[in-house]
Amino acid sequence: MSYTLLEISKHVEGELLGDPDYVVSSLGSLHKAKPEQLSFISNPKYANQLSSSEAGAVLIRDLKDASKVRNAILVRNPYLAFAKVSQLFVSDPQGWSANIHPSAQIHPTATMGHGVVLGPNVVIGANTAISDNVMIGAGTVLDEDIVIGEKTRIAANVSLYSGVVLGARCIVHSGAVIGSDGFGFAPDQGAWRKIHQLGSVIIGDDVEVGANTTIDRGAIDNTIIGNGVKIDNLVQIAHNVVIGDNSAIAGCVGIAGSSIIGKSCTLGGGVGLAGHLSITDNVHVTAMSLVTRSIHEPGSYSSGTALDSTPKWRRSAARLRRIENMAAQITKLEKQVSTLLTKG
Amino acid sequence: MSYTLLEISKHVEGELLGDPDYVVSSLGSLHKAKPEQLSFISNPKYANQLSSSEAGAVLIRDLKDASKVRNAILVRNPYLAFAKVSQLFVSDPQGWSANIHPSAQIHPTATMGHGVVLGPNVVIGANTAISDNVMIGAGTVLDEDIVIGEKTRIAANVSLYSGVVLGARCIVHSGAVIGSDGFGFAPDQGAWRKIHQLGSVIIGDDVEVGANTTIDRGAIDNTIIGNGVKIDNLVQIAHNVVIGDNSAIAGCVGIAGSSIIGKSCTLGGGVGLAGHLSITDNVHVTAMSLVTRSIHEPGSYSSGTALDSTPKWRRSAARLRRIENMAAQITKLEKQVSTLLTKG
Amino acid sequence: MSYTLLEISKHVEGELLGDPDYVVSSLGSLHKAKPEQLSFISNPKYANQLSSSEAGAVLIRDLKDASKVRNAILVRNPYLAFAKVSQLFVSDPQGWSANIHPSAQIHPTATMGHGVVLGPNVVIGANTAISDNVMIGAGTVLDEDIVIGEKTRIAANVSLYSGVVLGARCIVHSGAVIGSDGFGFAPDQGAWRKIHQLGSVIIGDDVEVGANTTIDRGAIDNTIIGNGVKIDNLVQIAHNVVIGDNSAIAGCVGIAGSSIIGKSCTLGGGVGLAGHLSITDNVHVTAMSLVTRSIHEPGSYSSGTALDSTPKWRRSAARLRRIENMAAQITKLEKQVSTLLTKG
Repeated sequence: MSYTLLEISKHVEGELLGDPDYVVSSLGSLHKAKPEQLSFISNPKYANQLSSSEAGAVLIRDLKDASKVRNAILVRNPYLAFAKVSQLFVSDPQGWSANIHPSAQIHPTATMGHGVVLGPNVVIGANTAISDNVMIGAGTVLDEDIVIGEKTRIAANVSLYSGVVLGARCIVHSGAVIGSDGFGFAPDQGAWRKIHQLGSVIIGDDVEVGANTTIDRGAIDNTIIGNGVKIDNLVQIAHNVVIGDNSAIAGCVGIAGSSIIGKSCTLGGGVGLAGHLSITDNVHVTAMSLVTRSIHEPGSYSSGTALDSTPKWRRSAARLRRIENMAAQITKLEKQVSTLLTKG
Repeated sequence: MSYTLLEISKHVEGELLGDPDYVVSSLGSLHKAKPEQLSFISNPKYANQLSSSEAGAVLIRDLKDASKVRNAILVRNPYLAFAKVSQLFVSDPQGWSANIHPSAQIHPTATMGHGVVLGPNVVIGANTAISDNVMIGAGTVLDEDIVIGEKTRIAANVSLYSGVVLGARCIVHSGAVIGSDGFGFAPDQGAWRKIHQLGSVIIGDDVEVGANTTIDRGAIDNTIIGNGVKIDNLVQIAHNVVIGDNSAIAGCVGIAGSSIIGKSCTLGGGVGLAGHLSITDNVHVTAMSLVTRSIHEPGSYSSGTALDSTPKWRRSAARLRRIENMAAQITKLEKQVSTLLTKG
Repeated sequence: MSYTLLEISKHVEGELLGDPDYVVSSLGSLHKAKPEQLSFISNPKYANQLSSSEAGAVLIRDLKDASKVRNAILVRNPYLAFAKVSQLFVSDPQGWSANIHPSAQIHPTATMGHGVVLGPNVVIGANTAISDNVMIGAGTVLDEDIVIGEKTRIAANVSLYSGVVLGARCIVHSGAVIGSDGFGFAPDQGAWRKIHQLGSVIIGDDVEVGANTTIDRGAIDNTIIGNGVKIDNLVQIAHNVVIGDNSAIAGCVGIAGSSIIGKSCTLGGGVGLAGHLSITDNVHVTAMSLVTRSIHEPGSYSSGTALDSTPKWRRSAARLRRIENMAAQITKLEKQVSTLLTKG
């Protein structure tokens, strides 16, 4: 798997400043790259690494950087160009991935498009419809009445419950669970009575679902994930959540039931969203913040406190518990000083 | 799957105000329900949606709301009534779910009750005992010496380690892991020596365990989950934790080792509990709070800070790190003002 | 499985104060242990339980405690001695664990050492190399080009992506996913373009990976876990993270991309680490703290606030949002008092 710089520069629609016949065979980070590797610089603060980099070629944005490297490909957005190039170096899986493994259990009522690859021990339930060129990894279980759009890839040991709809060109990573019951119970004489979860999960096109992420089915209506949404690992999405197109959810986020998230939002790692909230488009929440109210204005939001040494933090945390007293002290002082100033 | 309103009203022990022969065939949320659907109103703040709802019938609590809807069923607790009705509309699984799939691997020493359903590729280890009417989804692995109570349903790709005991009428969702080793290591010359985890996990009746939730086996004694406990997705329950009957644990909660939680407690999403704590009955902890001390009084508890715009939050967080200085400033001012007042 | 106290005391290199032929057949916690059980005391605050304990023998540190118990084994570090003894009482798995189950799917190009045990439905991909005495649980999927070191044990339903390298004597618990794609996307005209993740995951010797933990493959370079690292359940380790030898990561921790953690660090439950940070050796972070900056000094670090009753917490949290106003009030008071003092 190797390419000439001419091929690379055409692929990224960049301007080649160097040898068009120079061949690169893999990618490398700037400070580690070898002569047979292609690298990139997206953050100017690493510009000092350019002169010492052994990379065979570098994707750059500033013409002035071209002379510092062996070969340069000038592009408007080196990070995006790098993303485009990364696709060229994906190795095709070998082994099981040519067709349908004989150990796969396919229900007779399931339907299968052209070019479908099913790994060993894949289970496809009744009435489930798999579109063309879908790949499903070993041990993955698709229950009944599921629809999978074309070119979607599902890794090993994924579980999809009945009725889930997954769009085209999605990627679902190992251990993800889609369509499990939402957490719904009515109090009943000191115990909990289950509210059976009768909705489903509808996922758009070009969605990525991370490893061991869970997306619950709706209670009555569906849980809905828009097109182009990217979800990292170990994320919990509760019943009836709606996520708008192209929002990105980092690892360990938890979104409680019935909350609606707009388009092009980003939630940082470990963020928590309470239930029944409405978050408008283009909202960004920083890591481990807790959102307990709806957000109507685009922008960046945070909660939490800054890191400190534990002894100092302990004193601050104890003091914070008495902040109301401090406020009362200030009010009293203001009155006293006001009296003194009046007298004066 | 459709029912007359007479049937529905009998099932929920409600009073029908409308046509007893009117037929509903599914459930709908108030603002979306169609004439063939049944809905409910539990929160009075949605009462304004009643007049415009097209629902065929609505479970209501207030007699005055009856005239606003097509047909009404008067009940004391519409949310609980809705939970009861939801059970009527659960579709029976088709496909694999009639009996024991030939690909299931059952150890010759395992025992199996009547009416057991095992999906494709289920694995049942040595000496494991499955009671009557248990259903186990595809790819689920039960190791050795496990006991499963009657009518318990385990979804696909669940892993139960040896020795785990699961009560009757439980539901375990996909990806859940029960009986993995607790996180126990003794420091030994700069490295960690494993404390082998010799206890097990004992789970009561009517427990629900969410998708990708993990419950570790005890170190010496057992980890114990009481009857009627409901656990959401991606929850971590460490070794030797004890959870009292009918407590409910929301998604992404982490409970450290040997903590004891009382009955009828609720832990909000993302809550953390430190180890070796004792939490009394009827304690409620709000989302993402960290509990680092035992709680002896019932009530609601919280930690954390409120959400703000990131720039404003950043200033508050920086200021909080200096709150001790503020307290010192106040003390100094109080002394100075006291002196001034005395002089005055 | 039973041992004389002579055998036990030799195994832990302790001094036996009691009957060398006394037999113990299992372990028990101090207050519950029966005469046929061995217990230990590591925390002096439980010393009052010694006299009433029925344990057949107790691992102790203080000679003065010996007379309080039936038989004593004097050791320097009872907790470590207990860890060593716990190994004696691990039961060998029975059932499937004698050899390679006929339902295991092994690619013809995979290689297998001596004494390898593969449970039912294990899948081993092309060119994957399994060393001697490796045990792999039912339903676990190893993709292509994977290397597993000797005596490593992988539980049921684990997923390893292609190219992952796992050292010797590791333990990987059920549901763990190693080698899934890192969360890398470049913004592209309002959508996200995937950066294909071309690195892998390299894990050292004696590493434990908890249930449902996820470790992503690197984008270009590898994600690296050092020797002796212990990782609890539901931990997220993002692409290109590096963790130094003998660090321990508690449950529900999330570590964002490219962060480097030193040796012998401990991260408490639910801790979050932002990306691209550098944490030096011997850093300890308390539960649920968020680390957003590099840490260059060993020590203990924290963030967050203390638990309070919800009504009191609500007032403190509201006041904290106005802490900048409080600071301004103090500054104003200081000026006014300074003026008054000058006048006076």
